[in-house]
Amino acid sequence: MTDEASNRPEARAPRGFADRRGRDLTAERRIVARVSEVYERWGFEALETPAFEYADALGKFLPDADRPNEGVFALQDDDDQWMALRYDHTAPLARFAAQNWETLPKPFRRYAYGPVWRNEKPGPGRFREFWQCDADTVGSDRPEADAEIIAMGCEGLRAAGLAAGQAVIRVSNRKLFDGLFDAGGITDPVQRLTALRAVDKYDRLGVEGVRLLLGEGRLDESGDYTKGANLPASVIGAIEAFLASAETPGLSRAGVLDAVSGAALGAAGEEALKELAAIDRALNAMGVSQDDVRFDPTIVRGLEYYTGAVFEAELLLDTKDEKGRAVRFGSIGGGGRYDDLVSRFTGQSTPATGFSFGVSRLASALRAAGRGAEDETRGPVVAIVFSEDDMQHYLDAVSELRAAGVPAELYLGRAGMKAQMKYADRRGAPAAVILGGDEIATGQVTIKDLDAGRARAAAITDNNAWKAERPGQQTVARDQLVAVVRSIIE
Amino acid sequence: MTDEASNRPEARAPRGFADRRGRDLTAERRIVARVSEVYERWGFEALETPAFEYADALGKFLPDADRPNEGVFALQDDDDQWMALRYDHTAPLARFAAQNWETLPKPFRRYAYGPVWRNEKPGPGRFREFWQCDADTVGSDRPEADAEIIAMGCEGLRAAGLAAGQAVIRVSNRKLFDGLFDAGGITDPVQRLTALRAVDKYDRLGVEGVRLLLGEGRLDESGDYTKGANLPASVIGAIEAFLASAETPGLSRAGVLDAVSGAALGAAGEEALKELAAIDRALNAMGVSQDDVRFDPTIVRGLEYYTGAVFEAELLLDTKDEKGRAVRFGSIGGGGRYDDLVSRFTGQSTPATGFSFGVSRLASALRAAGRGAEDETRGPVVAIVFSEDDMQHYLDAVSELRAAGVPAELYLGRAGMKAQMKYADRRGAPAAVILGGDEIATGQVTIKDLDAGRARAAAITDNNAWKAERPGQQTVARDQLVAVVRSIIE
Repeated sequence: MTDEASNRPEARAPRGFADRRGRDLTAERRIVARVSEVYERWGFEALETPAFEYADALGKFLPDADRPNEGVFALQDDDDQWMALRYDHTAPLARFAAQNWETLPKPFRRYAYGPVWRNEKPGPGRFREFWQCDADTVGSDRPEADAEIIAMGCEGLRAAGLAAGQAVIRVSNRKLFDGLFDAGGITDPVQRLTALRAVDKYDRLGVEGVRLLLGEGRLDESGDYTKGANLPASVIGAIEAFLASAETPGLSRAGVLDAVSGAALGAAGEEALKELAAIDRALNAMGVSQDDVRFDPTIVRGLEYYTGAVFEAELLLDTKDEKGRAVRFGSIGGGGRYDDLVSRFTGQSTPATGFSFGVSRLASALRAAGRGAEDETRGPVVAIVFSEDDMQHYLDAVSELRAAGVPAELYLGRAGMKAQMKYADRRGAPAAVILGGDEIATGQVTIKDLDAGRARAAAITDNNAWKAERPGQQTVARDQLVAVVRSIIE
Repeated sequence: MTDEASNRPEARAPRGFADRRGRDLTAERRIVARVSEVYERWGFEALETPAFEYADALGKFLPDADRPNEGVFALQDDDDQWMALRYDHTAPLARFAAQNWETLPKPFRRYAYGPVWRNEKPGPGRFREFWQCDADTVGSDRPEADAEIIAMGCEGLRAAGLAAGQAVIRVSNRKLFDGLFDAGGITDPVQRLTALRAVDKYDRLGVEGVRLLLGEGRLDESGDYTKGANLPASVIGAIEAFLASAETPGLSRAGVLDAVSGAALGAAGEEALKELAAIDRALNAMGVSQDDVRFDPTIVRGLEYYTGAVFEAELLLDTKDEKGRAVRFGSIGGGGRYDDLVSRFTGQSTPATGFSFGVSRLASALRAAGRGAEDETRGPVVAIVFSEDDMQHYLDAVSELRAAGVPAELYLGRAGMKAQMKYADRRGAPAAVILGGDEIATGQVTIKDLDAGRARAAAITDNNAWKAERPGQQTVARDQLVAVVRSIIE
């Protein structure tokens, strides 16, 4: 290696960061465009905040000099203030709402999408930059505001490409457990947390496992013992009724509320039931089906964060990865009511509710669900170059195609015919336009149908048959160019 | 101030960073969508690289520990590597192309848009985060690749909203001056730079001022003396011919080449003329008018960067700011041929050419040109809330409107009628839907035409006349809701 070569930088993206192109990017852009269209129809305003916020505004503690990047990407501005890249869209919204509260229409509805950054250990499929799409209403304590976010989230997921029955939004209310614990005399926060963590393991452990973890504790197969929450039997019984209501097939939202209303839920729990009933009424008024939105009292998320209703969007369909193995996608988004974020700045409690989903995650889910076909990027028609002297003819042809709305390009390298056909193939071109000396002299054009060529090549195994047939190539009058290309594309 | 209050963070965006919403954001998104559509029709592939690149890949020297943020926002990853936020889209493209060169279709055409970050002193209208939109072809040394970028840039600006005659792309070739200096025996790089800087001041100083700066030097009105480049008279004469050719009204691209070809241009200059002639032929073949793209040998830009053709997109129309003062927008974008960026990584020279424009800058220009009207964001129709008990009726109404494609929302605060009308006004609502007890009982709905109301309010000065007329309010059968709202909106 020469000195010069060893001084060259290595061409690589930073750890945990990825380039996006082709069908992946197309899919993400389509999701964002379609969901935006829905959210604007529901009266939500677009907002883009900067990539940076002051670290104190993000709600992280001021990073200390030794570990300024704990969880976020932070740096010190030249006036010594710490700034950090946003790690979600909610903290910047809280800052924006507090900053502009006087002049905003209230309640303030906004949606936002774009990258967020997390300074975490990267791993396979775990990126440090990814897109999220959020919608929030700030300044309404009405359950109808929660219902609106949920119903709109449903319509957004549908518009993004998920069919009926492929996703469900599960809804609960944080105050259900608060009230249950109050009524059962469970005041120790650690005991409460242990119990909620047990409920969160229902998917993996089933009723029996959760019952043990709510009680004395559980010995798993490996011999490890997990200490239980030691709840009284009455509270465990109520939680089991919660689990059962979530599992009963065909139970309506009102049915779930009936099923859990028997337990001693305390004042907070009764309030939760009342709010959920109002959400149900509003969902019904907006025509949201029992299949699209279910009540599920076992939903436990964002313990430190949410203060009332909580939502979780789950992908239902069984999906397969590229090797045909079953993939459980689980949650593709969520949200809830958080009434304390804006008050961090203003000191005044400001009710807020919102829903967020990961754009790349939804794109992967759609692809795994076999809905990626429309995102296959079809390349442009490629015009082949033979001679400098005939550039005018080639440029005329691509201009004509573009003017007709057909993506088209001229090969602009300096390689020969064979390499140009390979190039057209790599570009995913549906057709190649050939204007050789003969064609130009006779006022004709040759169009190679590369789609047909690819299809037949897959079917024909005998190389001679392939050569004899010359799949999908036709020479037509020059003024038929656009018509023939269109017939191939459509 | 209580202790609690003094511990609250202040709600403010970081210095030099701005929130974007409403018509500004709509305008920028429209530009990006329309330009993307054009670029894809020309066979350019979408690419999004991460926000971060390794500092060495960005082409900045590794920042030293004391000033890691010189010009870029940089931080050290936990494996001690320096990363920086991209300051343009070209350096990440060079990294991407070098990293994937083996598998890319070559030449590789891509477009990109998104934020770039500059760690510079912020000021009025000078932001540290802004959107750029770029298109580049990597791997073609053909002048037709430059011509394609220029022609496509024209079509992009047109699609974004600039009418014919509102912008011009000026094109030159860096090698023109190289050859002129070679032929004139000007070998001193400082002398060359001084001369080019003088040419760059033509707009401000005119022919006379530039001639002085090319020669012995110039004394300005304030008494400051600027040292000249001391070029020989023959070279100054040639440069004056350059200036004259750029100023001659109606001179075609070929005419400009004729006008400058008389000078002693050396081998490099002759090569420049040959390349420009090929670009002209290709532009003509693609139907690009002499008004949209002009040759202007005085274009001097990116001295350290560009190696051949250079482009500059200039806004022509006289625009006014919000106070009616004339604003010279000048350059709204530019680009050129840069053959050395990819070779930084690979050691192999890789020809490339591209065009870039500032999205916010173009949006401001369009607005100043009076083309912002279509971006005025019209708010949703607002349904007024009177009673909890009638929520179902309100929700029905907004659901109906949305299903008909009309943006609509329910007021979800807890304020009275008057505040709700003010809210509707702040939202820019075209109409308010009123379903009071009377309307519901009689199967009717009242629709307030807020657009008409605003218009008449502007005309009516007498407060009593205003009240008597009750502008733009009508009560109709409930099933006429969508039809009446449509008649107001359309």
